[in-house]
Amino acid sequence: MELYEAMSTLRAVRRLRADPIPADVLERVLTAATWAPTGGNHQSWRIISVTAPELKQGLQDLYRPHWDSYVPAYEKHLTDMPAAQAEQSRRALESGTYLAHHMFEAPVICVFCFNTDNITITDAGLSRPSVVGGGSIYPAVQNLLLAARNEQLGCVLTTLLCIEEPAVKALLQIPEEWHTAAFVPLGYPVKGGHGSISRKPIEKMVYSNHFGAPLKP
Amino acid sequence: MELYEAMSTLRAVRRLRADPIPADVLERVLTAATWAPTGGNHQSWRIISVTAPELKQGLQDLYRPHWDSYVPAYEKHLTDMPAAQAEQSRRALESGTYLAHHMFEAPVICVFCFNTDNITITDAGLSRPSVVGGGSIYPAVQNLLLAARNEQLGCVLTTLLCIEEPAVKALLQIPEEWHTAAFVPLGYPVKGGHGSISRKPIEKMVYSNHFGAPLKP
Repeated sequence: MELYEAMSTLRAVRRLRADPIPADVLERVLTAATWAPTGGNHQSWRIISVTAPELKQGLQDLYRPHWDSYVPAYEKHLTDMPAAQAEQSRRALESGTYLAHHMFEAPVICVFCFNTDNITITDAGLSRPSVVGGGSIYPAVQNLLLAARNEQLGCVLTTLLCIEEPAVKALLQIPEEWHTAAFVPLGYPVKGGHGSISRKPIEKMVYSNHFGAPLKP
Repeated sequence: MELYEAMSTLRAVRRLRADPIPADVLERVLTAATWAPTGGNHQSWRIISVTAPELKQGLQDLYRPHWDSYVPAYEKHLTDMPAAQAEQSRRALESGTYLAHHMFEAPVICVFCFNTDNITITDAGLSRPSVVGGGSIYPAVQNLLLAARNEQLGCVLTTLLCIEEPAVKALLQIPEEWHTAAFVPLGYPVKGGHGSISRKPIEKMVYSNHFGAPLKP
């Protein structure tokens, strides 16, 4: 698939069929992740490809209570939105609830781990949440998502399970010095899967030379 | 360009020509960034496309001392490496030094900003560096890099200037509640540009069900 077509049709697909992913397809998707850049080319991340039913159920059991407790605030938030946006957000909420209740059905859950031994976290000293460690992890996640889209596999980037990192580490035997950054369920879509996406126009996302200055004067 | 070809030939290209980037090419690259997924589709990031010579010089003046102070430790590190790896790392070091001394020549420096108002940082309470905020920023950076590769533009993801965030914010008039996550110089390559990359094989990067368990038994 052509690069821009893959990028511009990559949706969050949360309703996934239990059908298995052929080994060669999964291997292409996982290999695409390994191509991503990392600081100093250290590649201080790993994927655990979780396919065992009891482990997928274990991840869902950790995920679901956090999702369910998140829903009421989200529903309240919907009432403050313009109608069109609220409708779109309600669909996202419903598919999120579907995922929370069916995550174990996904044939594969990709758990991204990382360690910080070789990551220089240049924003560690600032008085705001650090993000720079993610610069050597999430490019690989994005490669995986794009490759999944290329292979007609549904996928979605989730981070909710980081709240439960100690329990996830125990479940998947992750060593002390490794941490969790993303959980991506993969599987063939129940419904249409990927397609058109809704994003802000470039004029709202990109400035020229100074923050807030229009790109096209 | 086909997706896997773009991903598997995306290199860190640090020697960039001063030649301008045609407006339509730059717009395609910036638009590709906007397609990336973000938590709740909030897109709480922005790019400042820095093209003004005095601002690019200002960014370089902030960058260069940090790079120069980093070089001696890196050179010492090289002496501990196997010869082939040391040679590769020395080339990366040399191109990094080139960038530190020539960054202002790049026709565009893309400065990625973010705010955390709508980002749920699920790993904020853990006793290790937070990365999850990056999950709504670096997928966009990776899209931009892949699009640059598609357009034959050299590019490299750098985060060193986050150390100088207060000075960068003053230079580019970034409001208090916005922060910096990545700086990507863009320009046509001086030398070969993109091409083959060196990455660990999938067997070293991906495990099956438990951390450390081989993907292919």
